[in-house]
Amino acid sequence: MRLERAAALAPGGVGNIGPGLDVLGMAVTGPGDRVIAERADEPGVTMSGAGHADLPRAADKNAAGIAANAVLERAGTLRDGVRLTLEKGLPISGGQGGSAASAVASAVAVNRLLGNPLDAIALFECALVAESQLSGRHGDNLASALFGGVILVRSLDPVDIVSLPWPAELRVVLAHPAQRLDTAAAREVLPSFIDRASVTAAMANVAAMVAAFASGDMALLGRALDDQIAEPARAVLLPGFVEAKAAALKAGALAGSISGGGPTSFYITDSDSTAAKIADAVRAEYDSRGIACDTRVSRVAPKGALTLADDATSA
Amino acid sequence: MRLERAAALAPGGVGNIGPGLDVLGMAVTGPGDRVIAERADEPGVTMSGAGHADLPRAADKNAAGIAANAVLERAGTLRDGVRLTLEKGLPISGGQGGSAASAVASAVAVNRLLGNPLDAIALFECALVAESQLSGRHGDNLASALFGGVILVRSLDPVDIVSLPWPAELRVVLAHPAQRLDTAAAREVLPSFIDRASVTAAMANVAAMVAAFASGDMALLGRALDDQIAEPARAVLLPGFVEAKAAALKAGALAGSISGGGPTSFYITDSDSTAAKIADAVRAEYDSRGIACDTRVSRVAPKGALTLADDATSA
Repeated sequence: MRLERAAALAPGGVGNIGPGLDVLGMAVTGPGDRVIAERADEPGVTMSGAGHADLPRAADKNAAGIAANAVLERAGTLRDGVRLTLEKGLPISGGQGGSAASAVASAVAVNRLLGNPLDAIALFECALVAESQLSGRHGDNLASALFGGVILVRSLDPVDIVSLPWPAELRVVLAHPAQRLDTAAAREVLPSFIDRASVTAAMANVAAMVAAFASGDMALLGRALDDQIAEPARAVLLPGFVEAKAAALKAGALAGSISGGGPTSFYITDSDSTAAKIADAVRAEYDSRGIACDTRVSRVAPKGALTLADDATSA
Repeated sequence: MRLERAAALAPGGVGNIGPGLDVLGMAVTGPGDRVIAERADEPGVTMSGAGHADLPRAADKNAAGIAANAVLERAGTLRDGVRLTLEKGLPISGGQGGSAASAVASAVAVNRLLGNPLDAIALFECALVAESQLSGRHGDNLASALFGGVILVRSLDPVDIVSLPWPAELRVVLAHPAQRLDTAAAREVLPSFIDRASVTAAMANVAAMVAAFASGDMALLGRALDDQIAEPARAVLLPGFVEAKAAALKAGALAGSISGGGPTSFYITDSDSTAAKIADAVRAEYDSRGIACDTRVSRVAPKGALTLADDATSA
């Protein structure tokens, strides 16, 4: 059966999860990016829209377009014509894995349209082509968008991704202030070289987070979620973040940090009631500076684009 | 009941476990260091022997003596007199956690003699005084000697140690060539600053090792046990290591690296039969270079000095 139309939905996520720079990621419940892929007469990838007024509509500049083209190339079907429609649920340059979600949803949708010629690792690599071009070669947001849950990217060469368990009571408060931070700028402030003591501390914290995810030890997760490398470097680009984090901790958060490259920040806790208090405290802190801030309480999203159902497929 | 004599036995271990520099450690079965602490008339710590012809007998220069003194100081009983006898089962400057085992066994023995005034974390800190003075301020070997098993040192300030599970089938081949490498020299060759890509790779591997220990995924443990920071720097100090490791991998080892600061190297596998082949291959490789090499096949030692029974205590 030759499909005429297929779609896929990818969740947003928290890249890095604090100290795990480019290594840890988690998919979170809430909005996602959806891509509909349809057969078109003209060979190659075209886009019926950019998904957002601030995103490029050219297929070779848009995350969804780049990933779709990589799928056609990898599947050896470049003569096929594919038209993409991107429904952007995640914020642009928000630090919620939006570009990764667009790339992953597109790769999965186009693969479905073609009859699933590519396996999961190949789809990850196709989405990585887009992520590398647009925001740096890292796989944390891609892996959580594709597989869902909490993931560990052990290696990109070769691709080696590990799915981790997580405690059922984990709640994630996302706070998105009305600030925009370019992902590339957020990477430029990272140090090129890091002193060995800081490296040891970072390794220890990331390793302890994995131990905490495995054992369900929320207190350990809170102690280990302590980023002394990227967070101090990026905090200077994000007025109000330091104070918002302090307010979150005071309201009962076990820990918090910048989500991906920011400006979204995230805070972890173990109950809906504390999560609501944290959201209120962070919003109030930004309000006091005249900065609007959207908050939401999420959980880990167990499914990614590969396993999320989408009923838009038709022959 | 006032004790006149108490003793403790601490296992040797594999510091770092490859990429986990100063972060991961595991206690291994086989020889250990034993300390007997007896009441003495003269206040403070004296040693009835250094434990080895090449070790200093002065209590303030010997790992056992330094740790014992720290326990007396911490317990507020510096006027007590303690005489130590150190029975050294582990090699000197071998990379098998010998100095840590001496310090830990001494701290536990003296604490037993005094009626256990100190808790486990305080004992760890007392042994850390010795380790800091003699071989650098790191806690991986100390924690495995004290608690046994596989441990993760999340932080020294404050002390935060996490015990990890491990797969029952894990076998550890230890190969100790007739070379001696000073622990301080082995630290001097480590880079002071590390580029960010290498840091990301190291964090990812250490985190993946913790995931593999938790899930029992031996194949992942093998892929993740890949140290690109300390091992290349120290390999140049250890003629024959690179070839020995290659021979071990060819014989079926899942991975291997330098144990602590060396010269002992270690190799992991999942069966006694493969472990025996690895030991033979490594020994043959060193033999071909005219270097004698002791090998043994160990498992993770589940108990450390805190829980290992020792019947030398008497009133």
